[in-house]
Amino acid sequence: MRVLQRRLADFAAARRWQPYHTPKNLVAALSVEASELVEIFQWLTPEESARVMDRPGTAEKVEDEVADVLSYLLQFCEVLGIDAAAALAAKIERNEKRFPVPDPVPDGDTPDSPDRHSPE
Amino acid sequence: MRVLQRRLADFAAARRWQPYHTPKNLVAALSVEASELVEIFQWLTPEESARVMDRPGTAEKVEDEVADVLSYLLQFCEVLGIDAAAALAAKIERNEKRFPVPDPVPDGDTPDSPDRHSPE
Amino acid sequence: MRVLQRRLADFAAARRWQPYHTPKNLVAALSVEASELVEIFQWLTPEESARVMDRPGTAEKVEDEVADVLSYLLQFCEVLGIDAAAALAAKIERNEKRFPVPDPVPDGDTPDSPDRHSPE
Amino acid sequence: MRVLQRRLADFAAARRWQPYHTPKNLVAALSVEASELVEIFQWLTPEESARVMDRPGTAEKVEDEVADVLSYLLQFCEVLGIDAAAALAAKIERNEKRFPVPDPVPDGDTPDSPDRHSPE
Repeated sequence: MRVLQRRLADFAAARRWQPYHTPKNLVAALSVEASELVEIFQWLTPEESARVMDRPGTAEKVEDEVADVLSYLLQFCEVLGIDAAAALAAKIERNEKRFPVPDPVPDGDTPDSPDRHSPE
Repeated sequence: MRVLQRRLADFAAARRWQPYHTPKNLVAALSVEASELVEIFQWLTPEESARVMDRPGTAEKVEDEVADVLSYLLQFCEVLGIDAAAALAAKIERNEKRFPVPDPVPDGDTPDSPDRHSPE
Repeated sequence: MRVLQRRLADFAAARRWQPYHTPKNLVAALSVEASELVEIFQWLTPEESARVMDRPGTAEKVEDEVADVLSYLLQFCEVLGIDAAAALAAKIERNEKRFPVPDPVPDGDTPDSPDRHSPE
Repeated sequence: MRVLQRRLADFAAARRWQPYHTPKNLVAALSVEASELVEIFQWLTPEESARVMDRPGTAEKVEDEVADVLSYLLQFCEVLGIDAAAALAAKIERNEKRFPVPDPVPDGDTPDSPDRHSPE
């Protein structure tokens, strides 16, 4: 991840895009790319959404948008000096304490949704 | 990144959240987290946005939202079998061909914005 | 709608918020509010999503977010001099020509999704 | 606004799109359209963002996206039986109480940002 972040920084520097790469602009671009990913799924049923990678054209588009989201996330982290992997590792540790593993539920019962013990 | 992706998958499995983790739902959650990052910056000037990490409370919040975005991106990739790092590496290579490094611009000239040779 | 737009403009002017209300900031705020609406639905099944107004607390929250989205949309239109209703009326007319009403489909057949003749 | 909402409902019904128009899908589409509006502004300075309507091609695009946002907002309200204008009027009234008009600030002073007494 750090190697990719460096390559992205060099890429932007060589094209002199840094003046455009304020944290505010990069985070807007990140949210735009996340929405382009949403767009692929917006009319699909949950079941269809699980099969998107079976359609070659769509699979490629999904991977492309994943790359865009990760790209802007890393560029954002680069300009602000954030270590995204460390931030996530710290968050997982906090969440492991906040959301203890529940007791087994009897078969057929529905477990709580992530909403009810929402990780955020 | 792969280690984090695995820990997130185990975390969700232990809490039986997989039924909620359709690609469609995860991508919605990803875009919601990206917007929570935008929210921090929405009324800031470009200059203020560059200094967000100087305010301890805000810095922590930014890192927290970065962790959330990366978390949902990796969980999305997990359920669809996507290698996010490989997707990004492939994209950088394509972009290096599509957007050749420009000739030096005279001092004081404004380089083209990323819009004009938009990487996407 | 015009009356509401005027009230919002007066509201912001009285609080001297205009310096913050650049089109760029307002559109970011609009997308943040739209995402807060998405957040309510992110873990729901399609069926559950159709019943959100049955839960009093959620119903109120949904209406509140709808107000926020409309509020920022109208404030955005105000600062740029856009007539949102006229823009939508013009778009509906264009779409009526672009997407002719299809022939009746036999019972049980699935009609095309909006994706295939996407209105945008 | 009610007339437009009706025309949109008839438009979707004639094309048999209702099965796709769950509240969850419509709110995803709404957020995607809001992001397409953000995309137009993402690399602009605040000053450039105030002048977007001077460029004919961009002006048209902005109006088009405004129409799309309003279209999905009204379609969402239609399927859930929400009166968007009434929701906004009620919110403005609540906000007028919550955020009293401040005393005049001496010339040159910066008023508080909407963040500090955020309307939401």
